[in-house]
This record gives sequence, C-alpha cells and structure tokens, in this order.
Amino acid sequence: MPSTESEPPSGNIMEQIVSLAKRRGFVYQASEIYGGIRGFWDYGPLGVLLKNNIRDHWWRAMVECPPVGPDGSPIDMVGLDSAIIQHPNVWKASGHVDNFNDPMVDCRETKARYRADHLWTAAAQVRRKNGNVETLGVFSVLSGDDAGDLFVKRVDKIARKTGGGEVVAPTDFVPFTKLSPAEMAEVVGPDAAQKGTLTEPRPFNMMMISYNGPLQDEDNKVYLRPETAQGIFTNYKNVLDTTRVRVPFGIAQIGKSYRNEVTPRNFIFRSREFEQMEMEFFCPPDQSILWYEFWRDERMKWWKSLGIRADNLKFRDHDDDELAHYSKACVDIEYKYPFTSPDFGELEGIAHRGCFDLTQHQQHSSQKLDYFDQELQLKLKESGASPEDVKAKSRYIPNVIEPASGLTRAVLVLLCEAYRCESRSGVEKFEYFAFKPQLAPIKAGIFPLVNKDGMPEIAQKLYMDLRQQFTCEYDPKQSIGKRYARMDEIGTPFSITVDGQTKDDQSVTIRHRDSQLQERVALEKVSTFLTEKLKA
Amino acid sequence: MPSTESEPPSGNIMEQIVSLAKRRGFVYQASEIYGGIRGFWDYGPLGVLLKNNIRDHWWRAMVECPPVGPDGSPIDMVGLDSAIIQHPNVWKASGHVDNFNDPMVDCRETKARYRADHLWTAAAQVRRKNGNVETLGVFSVLSGDDAGDLFVKRVDKIARKTGGGEVVAPTDFVPFTKLSPAEMAEVVGPDAAQKGTLTEPRPFNMMMISYNGPLQDEDNKVYLRPETAQGIFTNYKNVLDTTRVRVPFGIAQIGKSYRNEVTPRNFIFRSREFEQMEMEFFCPPDQSILWYEFWRDERMKWWKSLGIRADNLKFRDHDDDELAHYSKACVDIEYKYPFTSPDFGELEGIAHRGCFDLTQHQQHSSQKLDYFDQELQLKLKESGASPEDVKAKSRYIPNVIEPASGLTRAVLVLLCEAYRCESRSGVEKFEYFAFKPQLAPIKAGIFPLVNKDGMPEIAQKLYMDLRQQFTCEYDPKQSIGKRYARMDEIGTPFSITVDGQTKDDQSVTIRHRDSQLQERVALEKVSTFLTEKLKA
Repeated sequence: MPSTESEPPSGNIMEQIVSLAKRRGFVYQASEIYGGIRGFWDYGPLGVLLKNNIRDHWWRAMVECPPVGPDGSPIDMVGLDSAIIQHPNVWKASGHVDNFNDPMVDCRETKARYRADHLWTAAAQVRRKNGNVETLGVFSVLSGDDAGDLFVKRVDKIARKTGGGEVVAPTDFVPFTKLSPAEMAEVVGPDAAQKGTLTEPRPFNMMMISYNGPLQDEDNKVYLRPETAQGIFTNYKNVLDTTRVRVPFGIAQIGKSYRNEVTPRNFIFRSREFEQMEMEFFCPPDQSILWYEFWRDERMKWWKSLGIRADNLKFRDHDDDELAHYSKACVDIEYKYPFTSPDFGELEGIAHRGCFDLTQHQQHSSQKLDYFDQELQLKLKESGASPEDVKAKSRYIPNVIEPASGLTRAVLVLLCEAYRCESRSGVEKFEYFAFKPQLAPIKAGIFPLVNKDGMPEIAQKLYMDLRQQFTCEYDPKQSIGKRYARMDEIGTPFSITVDGQTKDDQSVTIRHRDSQLQERVALEKVSTFLTEKLKA
Repeated sequence: MPSTESEPPSGNIMEQIVSLAKRRGFVYQASEIYGGIRGFWDYGPLGVLLKNNIRDHWWRAMVECPPVGPDGSPIDMVGLDSAIIQHPNVWKASGHVDNFNDPMVDCRETKARYRADHLWTAAAQVRRKNGNVETLGVFSVLSGDDAGDLFVKRVDKIARKTGGGEVVAPTDFVPFTKLSPAEMAEVVGPDAAQKGTLTEPRPFNMMMISYNGPLQDEDNKVYLRPETAQGIFTNYKNVLDTTRVRVPFGIAQIGKSYRNEVTPRNFIFRSREFEQMEMEFFCPPDQSILWYEFWRDERMKWWKSLGIRADNLKFRDHDDDELAHYSKACVDIEYKYPFTSPDFGELEGIAHRGCFDLTQHQQHSSQKLDYFDQELQLKLKESGASPEDVKAKSRYIPNVIEPASGLTRAVLVLLCEAYRCESRSGVEKFEYFAFKPQLAPIKAGIFPLVNKDGMPEIAQKLYMDLRQQFTCEYDPKQSIGKRYARMDEIGTPFSITVDGQTKDDQSVTIRHRDSQLQERVALEKVSTFLTEKLKA
C-alpha cells in the first residue's frame, strides 16, 4: 500500500483511546444526539480542563515567561486575540484565497467529493465459481489501514449481484493521483455504484465561508480564518504603535480556526474546527537564522515539558522542494501517533517565513509595514558605514519565525501519550490515562472512606480548602476501590482518603495513581504535599 | 426623540474610552489596515490579558469553586467546550432557525438593509431664501444621539442642490416601526439619495451561515452558533452518562458566538463576533424557583466582585409580557454604560427556562432526555406516596436556570468602570484605567530608576523572579515619571523601582497607582507584598 499519514498498524489502540476519552467525558462527537456532524468535536468536562491546562502551559511559556533569548536577555513577547472573521482582503494578501486548495475529485454519479490524495485505486477482480478471474473495473477506496478490507467488502457486494464468486484481494493500491487523466476517468468512486466514475482532480478552497451583514452575496462573503497567524500580521503595526516592544519581539495567540477538510479523520487530529497556538516572531533579517534555530529548539523542549517521551518526538526538516519560495527553512516536530506508528505525523511546524507576510499585507493594504531600527542605525553609524548605507539598512521589513501548533492536536497527543492498558486492580485490561500530574484535569480526588462516622464532614472541608488552589473532585459514594479506579482512569494523580484514623490523628492517606502506593500525610500538610508534587 | 439603548448624553466619554483602549493596546478594530470590518474587534496585548483575567475569574467562580448551594452543600458543576458549528437540527430544535429574527427594511434604490427599530423618521424641510418652507419628503436616519445632526446635514446637502436655504431641524422623530405601510413606502433611506425609498419590515435571521464540506448547497448549510447554551443542552445526557454529577447540577461554558447584527454599535457592546459565558443549571422542577433566586443573587455578587460599584448595577425583572411562554421568570442584570447613562443597559440575563430546551431536543433528536431521580424516589416512598405517584414523579425532564453573560461585554464594562480622567502628574486631563488590582492586565511594572549603575541587573532579576507568579512588565527606558504615567494609563496597580539605595539596603520603592504614594519595601518581601495586595 502507498504510505500515507493514515496507515495505522495499531488502529485498535486508537479506537480504545477514543472510546475511553468518550466514556470518561474528555471528547464527545459534536451534536451526537443528532447523529453527529463530521469534523466537529465537543470537549467534555475533563477534556476542557485538559485543554485549558495545555493552553495555560503554552501561554505561560510564550507570553508570561518566554524563554531567555540567545543573548541572555528576556524576550519581548505580547499576546493577542484577533477575530476569527476578518476583512476578506486579509486572505487575498495571505494567498489563502488563491492557493489554499486541495485537489478534489467528484463522483460523476453521486456528486460526492473526495480529496484526490486520499484515494487509493486497484483493479476489482472476482474469481467466479468456474475459476475464471473477471475484472469488474478499477475501484477506489479511501486510504487508511482498513482500505484493504473496505475494498474487498465493496467488490464482494457487487460480485454477489453479478453471479457471485470470491473477491481477489488487491496486493497493492495505486494512489489515484498517480494515474493518467484517461485512467482516472475509469476509476469508480469509493461510495458509488459501479457506474459512478471520478473526475480529474480540481482545486477546492479549504476556507469555510460566511456572509457578513444582511445580504448574502459575493460582496459580503467572508471567511472563517484557516489560521490565527494572519490576525497577528495585520496587528503587527498596532502592537508596535501601542506597546513598548521593539524588534525583535513576538506576538502569540491561541484561538479557533477552520478548514473545510474534505476527509476529516483520525479523531481530533484533523477536524474542521480546531484550536491553534501560534506565535510570530519578528526579527531583523540578518538574525533570522539565529532565531529560527532558537525557536526550533525551544519548541521541542516545550513538548517534552508536557511529559512526552523523547523517542515519540522527532524533527523533520523540510526538503528544499517542500519549502515555499519565500522560506529559508522549515521544520516539523513530529509525534509517533498510534495511527502513524511506527512512522511519525505532524505536530508543530516551525517556519522561517522571511518577509513574505508583512510584504504582502503592505502591498495589499497600502500601509507602511517596515520598521526603523534605531539600535541598528546607531551600530552602523558607529561602525563607520556611509550615510546612504545607514539609511538603507536601518529601515527594513522584519523577517518572521513562526512556531505554529494545534491546541486540540496537543490534547490528542496527551491522550495518546498517557494512555495505559495493563493488568491492575484485579482487572486484566485496565485502561487509564497517566497524565503528567501538572496537566491532569483533576489533581486530587477527595473521599471519605465511608459516607458516615464524621468522615464526610472532614473530607468535604478538606475539599473546600484544597479546591481554592487545585482542581479537585469530592466523591463520597461507591466502594473506595471503585473510586480509586475511576480516578486512575481519568488520570488523577492523587487520591486522598479520610478514614477512621483521621479523627484520631488528623491524618489522611494519599494514594499515588501510578505506583498505587499509599502514604499517610497530616491533614494540615496535604496542601503543601500537592504544591510540591505539582511543581513543574 | 424616541428613547433607545443608544441615546448617550455623554457620548464623548465613550469616545475617550474607545480611544484610550485603542491607544494603549486593549482593543483594535479588526482588519484595521484594510479599513476594518464592521462588527468585529481584535483584543490587543492588554485586552487579551484583561479578557483572560475575567474569563478565569468566571471559570473559577462557576467551575472550580462554585458557590455553596442553598442547603449548605457544594454545588455540582462541570465545564464544557462545545464546537461553534453544530448539526443544523440543533438550531431547528432551539427555535433559532424559525424565530431568531430581526425586522429589517431594504432601501429599494441602494439595496442597503437596516434594522427597522433602529430607524427614526421626520419630514425634511427647508426654509428657502424667499421664506417659504418646502418639504423635500420624509427622511430616515439611524437612531442615536447624533441623529439630529446627521439628519440636518443630509437634508442640507440636498437643499443646496435644489436652490439652497436653511434646513428646519426636526423637533421630534417618529420611529419607523410606528408608521403605516403606506407611510413607510414614502420614507427615504438613511444612506440613500432622495429617491431611495424603504420597504416594509421583513424578518431577517441573525444566524451567520456557512457550508460544511465541499458542496455549498442547502443540504450542507450550517450555522455559526448564536449562543453557547445549545451546546450544553445537546451534551446534557453525555455529561450525565460520563461523569458523577446528579441533578441538580450545572454545566458551564465560555466561547465565541456570532450574531449577524444589522447595526453593530457601541464599540464592543454589540458586535457580530463576541464571547459568552453561559451556565445551564439543571434542577428538579419543584426546586426551580429556589435555584432561580439563588443564581440571580450569586450572579450579582459576582459582578460586584469585579470591582463594579453597586450603584452602577441593577436588576430589571422582565414583565410578564416579555417572558417566553415556557419561562416562569427572567431578570437582567443591567449596567449604567456611558452610552445609556443615566439609564442602564443589558449586561447579563438570568432566565428560568423551564423544561423547554431539553423537551425540544428530546423531540427533535428522538433521544430520551428525562432524568430518573433516585433520591426523590426514595423520599416519595418514605413519605408514603402511591407506587403510581412515585413512578410518575421520580422521572422528569429537569428545569433549567440559565445565567448568560458576555465575556467581551464584561471587558467593556471593566473599561468603562475603571476609566478615570482627572488632573494628576501635572496633566490637566490625565486619562487612566483604575482596574481592581486582581483583574489588571499587568500587576506590576519593574523599573531601574536609571539604566546604569547596576540598577538594570537588579531590576531584571526581580522581574524574572516575579513573573513566575504575576504578569509583570520590565521597562528600563524613558524618565521614571513617564514610565509611572504609562503604568497608570494601562491600570497597573504597582510600580516597583530599583534605585540608588537598593544596592545599599536591598530595598525598592513601590508606587501605588491610585494614591500615587510610594513606600519602601525590602527586595525579598516584594513577592509577599504583591500576593497580599492581590488577594481576592
């Protein structure tokens, strides 16, 4: 089979993660009671806490406590929250109106539409009862680990209608995009009956549209942003004019974006509504490589700080032929997802974007977006440069280094990374999430051993105290074993139990999720215990 | 003039707030370099911090540390983050497809569209040079404090073209909606030339639309949510099935919503893209009034906890004829905005929604959304109720109490509430924001008195330490007075200065924004000082 991002040798692990995430309130299908809506997901009570924790962790690392720069000084960084809907010219300038396209094919019969690079094709062959192998045509199927099975199932259905026989499983698929136009016209679409052949690929813009104001016409057409980055570029001048930052500096933003993916897939990996964490770092052109390498390394450190194992992460430098014409360098941080393993899939891109974006916006908006670098001017003067040289070099359009990642994709990575299935608590295949304690949705479960004998009062008081500092859950019901198990499942690192001894010696037990070991801690020390354990 | 929300006797205060908010990086017009896009705003470096602080304050008060309930027990509350785009049937069930309409009128000539209740009309009259008063027709103008001026200006323009003369200022306007259909057909649109008359009002749906997937047809039409609430109702069953909460409980959510307002106005008060904070509290029908009153009072307390003066807030109970048919009660918390003063305008609604929403979704989705109340069953049995009665009463569709407010509107309220213009620092009209310290975007500015003599090193180290706990800014440049003034402007409560004495006795000065007084604090006590002062 051709290799794509969607070839999972361990598809069932992914299914288990999706199922546990649903069962425990992390991620639900959006509009589930109405049968769902493809490409959209809702984050449940635990999912939103996990997502918020990652959001805050990123914001802290980028805006509140950005790393110290290569010269040892603190970096200038500010935050932003720009609107999802912007003036349509923003997307003309950015190139998204003209270039943000996927090649798409239509089924001539059913009018269904597919992404060309998501289609695999093979000859559909049936061994009839008399032993003859008959070819029914060239069929396509959506790429993926179950492509072979789906293909056989579909051909079998048609074979039954035409005299039966045994389907010959294809030994290999040919990507649809590798076919000649004539061959393409012979291929039957993946959902269609035999006669529904596919068109040649055509560009399809991935931006979702809407209409601003009361009239739904071309003049009022707007786009839901496909990335948060452009809202940063359009505010670059505003930020320079209204804050004290000077080049080099960064603007960071977290927010939702939309891409009208033709085939949303792999749970929340590729959805139509998703949340991004992007930062644009504006720097003098001659420092751009320095900053590119700086942010590449910093971003890898950040992902590791989420508790992701180093061998599940890797860099993938873009080849020269992958680079946009304006880009000097680009690297992906990749993660070994269950559905790509043993291969890796995209997690974050760190791109050297040159002066492309600001130049484009300067041109389309007719606003001056260059920067006068007073410090550089001084340096040039001191170095004895000619007045012409000083003038020419001290005014420039900054270069941009862009680390762009997905918040919702980070949720997926943490779910995958933390997922465990092992024998414990008398259950052969006990599933749970072993989140890094700092990022766990619930930091501590607080239980009275039994719901009487004064225990609930003490436990509830402890809960009311602790929740001022930590996201906690109080649960007085069911057996203590069941309550521990539930805390393990949702990744809560600590379970605190008030028992018969508590009234006598003012101590509680604290159980550790991973080791399942318990220790006795004085009631008054519980808060300090948690603070210590939850230090970054 | 007819009274509307937009009649500001103090319009210039609002202009000053908008201007300061722009100048200091709180709120920018979206896509400003492209001339802006009506109804959309970007939150700048300080705006996003202020917004995040309010967001976190609400989340803490609702999800992490919800108030103790009327019976003295902690309330069950969980968070959620549902998608902005949901299955279109959600909006059929909620009534938004059929009923979420504003009456709109079109200009027959220019095709421009206006909200009927935003139009005022009057006879356009000119006193010609010969003394005769000539009527040019009935003209309309958009309601607002500047309506009279606009009207005169427009009539004057036409008068000049037709022989000149003095415009007779209208003594009163008649709302467009009060006219008869025949009269409406005679009215000239507010932006049109003399001949562009207006149609009768027609309903216009305020939901913004998009298309999901590659085909832009009716089958694939989706809506950008006009409220976050429905994402809560559609997940009510998911939450019950996957968490440990039991009725009564609440689900809280913060997120963006969209309303295709025909006339977005009053800065970020009424924009097309905005951010909501909504909570749906599910309770047994016979406790619904109890919970309604509980949340009404709690929500008022919360607004006051933001530092809003009590006399700028008030309740406004909805009259019976304002209530939806399913609602037993509804109250608005209103704020005295500069553009409504001395009147009040809407800030938050607390609505008793009965069982309307869940019943609608049950009907449209064919999913059972009733609740079996085990506790109630037990109570009924104990009280000796008949088996039929026990069965009938212990299964019900919960009633819902909904406190719904706007996060972006809360930003507006804090900007208005904190705005000061007074003589200080030698400036006659010095403008600044006196935010409650806990909500200020920047908690402390950290300065070396001069950028030499070892002061920057100490100040920078202090900054690096403090920013681990507090959002801080380090600024070594300009005169100290200018730096203090800038911190005052953006509402930073504390300015910390390392001066000549610091090296000798390890102390700094801390200047208070409001009193402008300074005190000397030991370097090692600064963190404790801030912690104390920033306690809620």
